[in-house]
Amino acid sequence: MREVAIVGAAMTKFGELWDRSLRDIGLESGMLVLMDAGMETEDVEALFLGNMSAGRFIQQEHIGALIADHAGLADRGIPATRVEAGGATGSLALRQAYLTVASGAHDVVMVGGAEKMTDVSDRDAEETMSFAADQEWEVFFGATLASLYAMMARRHMHDHGTTPEQLAHVAVKNHAHGSGNPKAQCRNKLTVERVLGAGRVAEPLGVLDCSPISDGGAAVVLTTLERAKEITDEPVIIRGSAQASDTLALHDRWSITSQRATRLAVQGALSQAGKELADMDLMEVNDGFTIAEIIALEDLGLAEPGQGGRLAEEGVTALGGDMPVNTSGGLKARGNPPGATGIAQIVEIYDQLKGRAEGRQVADARVGLAHNVGGTGATVAVHILEVA
Amino acid sequence: MREVAIVGAAMTKFGELWDRSLRDIGLESGMLVLMDAGMETEDVEALFLGNMSAGRFIQQEHIGALIADHAGLADRGIPATRVEAGGATGSLALRQAYLTVASGAHDVVMVGGAEKMTDVSDRDAEETMSFAADQEWEVFFGATLASLYAMMARRHMHDHGTTPEQLAHVAVKNHAHGSGNPKAQCRNKLTVERVLGAGRVAEPLGVLDCSPISDGGAAVVLTTLERAKEITDEPVIIRGSAQASDTLALHDRWSITSQRATRLAVQGALSQAGKELADMDLMEVNDGFTIAEIIALEDLGLAEPGQGGRLAEEGVTALGGDMPVNTSGGLKARGNPPGATGIAQIVEIYDQLKGRAEGRQVADARVGLAHNVGGTGATVAVHILEVA
Repeated sequence: MREVAIVGAAMTKFGELWDRSLRDIGLESGMLVLMDAGMETEDVEALFLGNMSAGRFIQQEHIGALIADHAGLADRGIPATRVEAGGATGSLALRQAYLTVASGAHDVVMVGGAEKMTDVSDRDAEETMSFAADQEWEVFFGATLASLYAMMARRHMHDHGTTPEQLAHVAVKNHAHGSGNPKAQCRNKLTVERVLGAGRVAEPLGVLDCSPISDGGAAVVLTTLERAKEITDEPVIIRGSAQASDTLALHDRWSITSQRATRLAVQGALSQAGKELADMDLMEVNDGFTIAEIIALEDLGLAEPGQGGRLAEEGVTALGGDMPVNTSGGLKARGNPPGATGIAQIVEIYDQLKGRAEGRQVADARVGLAHNVGGTGATVAVHILEVA
Repeated sequence: MREVAIVGAAMTKFGELWDRSLRDIGLESGMLVLMDAGMETEDVEALFLGNMSAGRFIQQEHIGALIADHAGLADRGIPATRVEAGGATGSLALRQAYLTVASGAHDVVMVGGAEKMTDVSDRDAEETMSFAADQEWEVFFGATLASLYAMMARRHMHDHGTTPEQLAHVAVKNHAHGSGNPKAQCRNKLTVERVLGAGRVAEPLGVLDCSPISDGGAAVVLTTLERAKEITDEPVIIRGSAQASDTLALHDRWSITSQRATRLAVQGALSQAGKELADMDLMEVNDGFTIAEIIALEDLGLAEPGQGGRLAEEGVTALGGDMPVNTSGGLKARGNPPGATGIAQIVEIYDQLKGRAEGRQVADARVGLAHNVGGTGATVAVHILEVA
């Protein structure tokens, strides 16, 4: 396989983008990333597009063609492929693009992720997000993603003594990070008291433990390492790309306080990269709910099982800490349009490795990891980027 | 890129499968294809899954993980990726699997396609199929896939003198073929009179000019040519794989009686395979509507522009003719569950090249082509298979 590098990364502002449709968001992401890469649409040989549920959100399928059309790529017949895996949609689109360049089939590939959630009611949006869980065994009986993650949180508290305050610290940290990110949806700072006092969604999770409903898009351009070196002295290389599955329904897992797919994916990505977790300078991990970041960091290996709650509480994962996590604000504060989230994580790592994450820069960042989760953990992808 | 071969191909019966859910259909397809390949689930390293719109049809997204789970692949964490492109969904899943094996990332990859359309009303199913066209510029104003193809048919008649009888001959031929295919949804034979006398859907297309609403699944197993040779003396090799896009909306095209994406894709696939169209022994092409097969055969190069209507009428594309087209019955008679259709085409070509297409075998078939279309032609993929 050929080595693959990222030569451009960009995203729209995330938020409630009332004035823009999905095609507008796709077009904006595409224009921004080409400007960043110093390329023209004519340079792009293929498009991969992450979108979770435009069929539900805007009554439109065939999303690859839609975005290729509106980004001006259809004029030349450029192949466009939509990929979907719940919240892990973006990173799977990235992985397909990575494999396409690695295979030799194409030299320059654009990967976008986009979602438009706010054309339906909040209730419909939440219901559709839950379609990443198991319809027949979970959703049909009233479970939502929030209530399923609430079960994980309760069990984590029961088994390991994790506290509501520790959950709240994740939200406080990620909002603090997001306040420094002009593209973030939520730039307000929080306190532990405020998170604990917020309206309850599914005990022990309140509304400030949950990522928001978001519109937004993000995109990156991949090419061969050779070609990247012609463009820049410091290419950002995809050192590891791995993906794993687990059962769709939570009750089929051996544990609900650990996500096996995360363990498999991080193992795969680190081994391909020839690195250890301690080599990372920063990580973007799944924090769709506060408990999710705690579980993710345990499964990634930053904390022992059950000890993840301490990390945000003790400042380990804050900017300036030993291992900054979700410097973008994460899903929690940057926002979580599911098709775009996995790509937005890559945009953050890229910006950090390029030293251009103004207002939230991790000093001397050289290696970063992105961890993207679909549903309650049935799909996980991990990517490791390094600036050479 | 490594050479890639198909070592197993299978499908469920297509039809109104009231007793089976999407997960059942996925599981059945997976079991059938492993039996055909003489493999175990343990041999499979990755899954690609084509599904167009489970979000609308069964309120479930995250379809890769769903099928991996129920096919027993999630136990080992096998990565599973869903791909979507309207009616071209299946062939795009195949192409991703092809690139994955070609790249060296995996040696044995399963590709499935599945759709469950009959859990919603016929009207809802037809509406969702139309989401492969442009929601904002076409569907919102009442256009359906049938009415858009009807516009193509009218224009084709106006420009080239194509007759309703010629359209009907496509349906008659494909039902005759389907009558020999035990997996086909429609095994009844038709007459030109009956097609012309059927209830109108969108003039000049009647209900017997349209493919049915279908449930069904299909799957193939890909591996490297080297490994395929260990399994069989006569591996079926993917000689060409190409994909192209066009504008999503029909009114943005330079012509509505020709699909540019077909021209680009067939050019790409033939050139990769080092072959000409005349080298094909049979083809499976898009006949979601009778006019679609006529346009496809012109764009593929089997007829001059405007002359495609003569092919079925004169028996050229019938079994026993110069170039048998849609020996499976095509979308028209075999059925058209959009996620599965592109894979079912590959299953038919595989069975023909293996000499096991009982009741409809093309004598001495060595090379075949599959042509899969999304929407009104915004995505087209062409694959060329050859038995070595």
